[in-house]
Amino acid sequence: TFSRGIQTVTLIPGDGIGPEISTAVMKIFEAAKAPIQWEERNVTAIKGPGGRWMIPPEAKESMNKNKIGLKGPLKTPIAAGHPSMNLLLRKTFDLYANVRPCVSIEGYKTPYTDVDLVTIRENTEGEYSGIEHLIVDGVVQSIKLITEEASRRIAKYAFEYARNNQRTSVTAVHKANIMRMSDGLFLRKCREVAENYKDVKFTEMYLDTVCLNMVQDPSHFDILVMPNLYGDILSDLCAGLIGGLGVTPSGNIGANGVAIFESVHGTAPDIAGKDLANPTALLLSAVMMLRHMGLHGHAKKIETACFDTIRDEKVLTKDLGGNAKCSEFTADICRRVQDMD
Amino acid sequence: TFSRGIQTVTLIPGDGIGPEISTAVMKIFEAAKAPIQWEERNVTAIKGPGGRWMIPPEAKESMNKNKIGLKGPLKTPIAAGHPSMNLLLRKTFDLYANVRPCVSIEGYKTPYTDVDLVTIRENTEGEYSGIEHLIVDGVVQSIKLITEEASRRIAKYAFEYARNNQRTSVTAVHKANIMRMSDGLFLRKCREVAENYKDVKFTEMYLDTVCLNMVQDPSHFDILVMPNLYGDILSDLCAGLIGGLGVTPSGNIGANGVAIFESVHGTAPDIAGKDLANPTALLLSAVMMLRHMGLHGHAKKIETACFDTIRDEKVLTKDLGGNAKCSEFTADICRRVQDMD
Ligand SMILES: CC(C)[C@H](C(=O)O)[C@@H](O)C(=O)O
Ligand SMILES: CC(C)[C@H](C(=O)O)[C@@H](O)C(=O)O
Repeated sequence: TFSRGIQTVTLIPGDGIGPEISTAVMKIFEAAKAPIQWEERNVTAIKGPGGRWMIPPEAKESMNKNKIGLKGPLKTPIAAGHPSMNLLLRKTFDLYANVRPCVSIEGYKTPYTDVDLVTIRENTEGEYSGIEHLIVDGVVQSIKLITEEASRRIAKYAFEYARNNQRTSVTAVHKANIMRMSDGLFLRKCREVAENYKDVKFTEMYLDTVCLNMVQDPSHFDILVMPNLYGDILSDLCAGLIGGLGVTPSGNIGANGVAIFESVHGTAPDIAGKDLANPTALLLSAVMMLRHMGLHGHAKKIETACFDTIRDEKVLTKDLGGNAKCSEFTADICRRVQDMD
Repeated sequence: TFSRGIQTVTLIPGDGIGPEISTAVMKIFEAAKAPIQWEERNVTAIKGPGGRWMIPPEAKESMNKNKIGLKGPLKTPIAAGHPSMNLLLRKTFDLYANVRPCVSIEGYKTPYTDVDLVTIRENTEGEYSGIEHLIVDGVVQSIKLITEEASRRIAKYAFEYARNNQRTSVTAVHKANIMRMSDGLFLRKCREVAENYKDVKFTEMYLDTVCLNMVQDPSHFDILVMPNLYGDILSDLCAGLIGGLGVTPSGNIGANGVAIFESVHGTAPDIAGKDLANPTALLLSAVMMLRHMGLHGHAKKIETACFDTIRDEKVLTKDLGGNAKCSEFTADICRRVQDMD
């Protein structure tokens, strides 16, 4: 039948520039004849029974059914009193691995030319446990929670990722010299898992040393695996090396194929609705999604077209150094995709 | 009398290359006729009553008397079971502010040319509280402790530093979107203190955003103030931007003028005793020390000589891209210092 092989993906366009860049991705997917059908869902925080913040049921049901989602930026107003919806999504669907490949983009000049690494961040616990107390007036504690299970799970994910993506080394990033028990546990699990992957080189490094070496010569790094907060920091640092969040894809991966791919830049309210946004980060996240779904041909085609447009330097959005509109940049990628047929 | 105005400083040469680079600094100080007399003390972990690790009493007494110390690298063997002596020193003398100026060095090529910032790190609490528990098998918690008092103290230090060093802005670095109570408290204290320093611009930024922006354009940053772990990370990252720990000075400042200045690189056991080490980080730390003691003339003289030697590119140690010995590099700086008279 007509829909044979067509898979449905939950699309969360998001706030600010989210809808425009989502439209851009949909257009490019159409041009590439990617066998994807979108189910659009809104994700705004709602208060459930007992006053707990939750994902709207329509979005949740859609994700539960489709298993795979693509998400634009969501605004995270601290003042609104609810937790970041980005975090709530990761938690709700137990998306335990946050994966961000950082690869230098030809034609987009930064001080670094040969970055090719992947940060793999534990996405469910650590400093993001959300457990905090007031001990006495003026004294507060935040709890960093590290479990054997989550540590083993993320370590295993990193080594599997290395194997499946022809990568040669995994570095565990930690501060076990300071947090001997928590980071110590994380590190021990990494070591144990490494025993089962003798084909992948395993090293351990302090987070501070990684940051220092990273800005001196990022080309030495391959896969980096680490607890939640360290991943938050290091993934942004690495994104900076290749041009920032506007060009960096991200995937949140759970068990049984469940995953949400997202651009991690902000909602850019100042340019929202003006056809000025750069859809690259969301597009490259969508390319990660295609690979996750086994659609390697379509992924390659779209990725190549996107990088060709950037390398060509003729039709670039403002943040990339040009003066094209989002729709013009999108059209250029569509044209290239179609030319490949 | 002869000793009039001569101040005594506790010198902790340290391990590995520590003694060689300490000798280099002493020679340069002598050439510059700096009115400093050294009291050398060894700092190896010893076990005190009740099995608590402590600083050897001779070192402690010396520091208590002199108030000011200069320290080379100390080895920190996790396996030895005792805490890092670097940390124990900070704790013992309540050195609450870790100050690291990062300034691009002319002649030492890195991808960045106009770095001129200072990281000011809370040095006594946060993730470095050392409080950790095993909750149940496989579940560990580390406690990050933030207090009103320590937060206010470090914020005040940062703003005073800005004023006294003709700097124009202070940025508080945090993750209060995640650790709302602990980083929230830190941030609130920064805001409160900022109210008393209307002449200094105050901003707030997320740690991940700072890391990203830092590698894209560090020239926008001035003074950065932050909790302990963030400072550990960011100070190393910033050191990387200007050439690494071999050229970055550091000061640990306490109340009532008590302070220890230190090079934060390792002990480099592979080259220890071979006259190959680079004394720059320890020398620039000693220059910070001179300024702390109000000896601005001597500080300027030595600093200028050191930067001139580096800019000149003729007599450089291996790590700086040359093939001079430590003693030759030192002699070149001494000569320049003497020529200034
Ligand atoms: C939006 C924010 C809560 C989030 C985080 O801190 O994890 C973001 O920085 C990220 O890296 O995805
Ligand atoms: C030696 C180590 C314990 C220390 C730290 O983690 O603070 C070091 O990295 C530093 O920055 O001075």
